[in-house]
Amino acid sequence: MSVAYAQRARKILCIGRNYVDHIKELNNVKPSSPFFFLKPSSSILLPNEGPMLAPKGVIVHYEVELALIMGKTLKNLDPAKFGKKEAIDAIDGYALAVDMTARNIQDEAKKKGLPWSIGKGFDTFLPLSHYIPKSQIPDPHNVNLHLELNGEKRQNDSTGLMIFDIPKILTTMSSIMTIQPGDLILTGTPKGVGSVRPGDKITAGLSVNGKEIEEGKIAFI
Amino acid sequence: MSVAYAQRARKILCIGRNYVDHIKELNNVKPSSPFFFLKPSSSILLPNEGPMLAPKGVIVHYEVELALIMGKTLKNLDPAKFGKKEAIDAIDGYALAVDMTARNIQDEAKKKGLPWSIGKGFDTFLPLSHYIPKSQIPDPHNVNLHLELNGEKRQNDSTGLMIFDIPKILTTMSSIMTIQPGDLILTGTPKGVGSVRPGDKITAGLSVNGKEIEEGKIAFI
Ligand SMILES: [Mg+2]
Ligand SMILES: [Mg+2]
Ligand SMILES: [Mg+2]
Repeated sequence: MSVAYAQRARKILCIGRNYVDHIKELNNVKPSSPFFFLKPSSSILLPNEGPMLAPKGVIVHYEVELALIMGKTLKNLDPAKFGKKEAIDAIDGYALAVDMTARNIQDEAKKKGLPWSIGKGFDTFLPLSHYIPKSQIPDPHNVNLHLELNGEKRQNDSTGLMIFDIPKILTTMSSIMTIQPGDLILTGTPKGVGSVRPGDKITAGLSVNGKEIEEGKIAFI
Repeated sequence: MSVAYAQRARKILCIGRNYVDHIKELNNVKPSSPFFFLKPSSSILLPNEGPMLAPKGVIVHYEVELALIMGKTLKNLDPAKFGKKEAIDAIDGYALAVDMTARNIQDEAKKKGLPWSIGKGFDTFLPLSHYIPKSQIPDPHNVNLHLELNGEKRQNDSTGLMIFDIPKILTTMSSIMTIQPGDLILTGTPKGVGSVRPGDKITAGLSVNGKEIEEGKIAFI
């Protein structure tokens, strides 16, 4: 199993609000088109490199997400010509990701109209799994994502519930920023996000048709 | 002259609202501590690689800024022990940067509490100069930044006017994200920002004690 992909990412793009029930649980407004933000590569936490560090006075939430590891350069894609087949062709592999979020800092930024970069970008705020070969995930819209807090299931939903599917995510992003090989794209989190306290243990993973994918397992404190 | 530094940047961090008169011209609120956002490396526009591309329906503003090219790893710096000397020691070199901004998209994001990443991150939205050796800028708080629109001076101020100086910027950032060698840090723009229209020519540069620095010259359409 390898984590070399994580060193190659020149940018890490994350979709916000891509699952209806997650939008509801945070009392957010459903977006009319995908919006996204950047996480810095310095926030990556590789397997067995823990712990995740919660800054003092900060409410830290977990958000389990499917990450795409891009394999092609994509620029100004034509939505009429870029469907699921083309999207999968452009993907090199996958990873499981947890988009850790300083929720109180993000809420304050939202109120003041300030960037999200601080609330999303602390060191260790991006736990990643090992590289998942493409062959393990025949359809990225049919993956079950799950996350447990101290062994108790908190998130457990299918990527089929995404509001904006992967072709739509990639065409939107590519109209703004050129997507480059190695870039990581986080596709949003399903419902069930919540906060972690010192000593809490997070485990997360993904399964396809009931079969757990070894490379996708994450565990950290 | 070299632009190799631009390929090495693992992240690009930009301070917002760091000059009083620029805060006033956009009717913004003065921050009580430095805040910042990320630009993607895909937005870099190298010298002679123009043109800058304004997306349709977008009001694009120029913001001339001094960029620091970092030379050291900085993490959780102690403000009491990190002054101007230590800051300069941690810098590898400089560049002139123009933080192009889709102002109407940013304004909309601010109103809705959404990330700034789209408004700041379009391809070509980060024109950069050649590498400026550290020896050319003995004091980064004593640099004159200037920008001309079609030959007419629009921005022309000293970096001495920064609200938060470079030690303060670096200690704040390093308490959130580890700064890595090669990272680029944009230090904010002085007053005089404004929009560009198709065909407009932007030139920009910087001088130290009245002497223009060759490597810092930028020109693009
Ligand atoms: Mg997320
Ligand atoms: Mg942002
Ligand atoms: Mg700026």
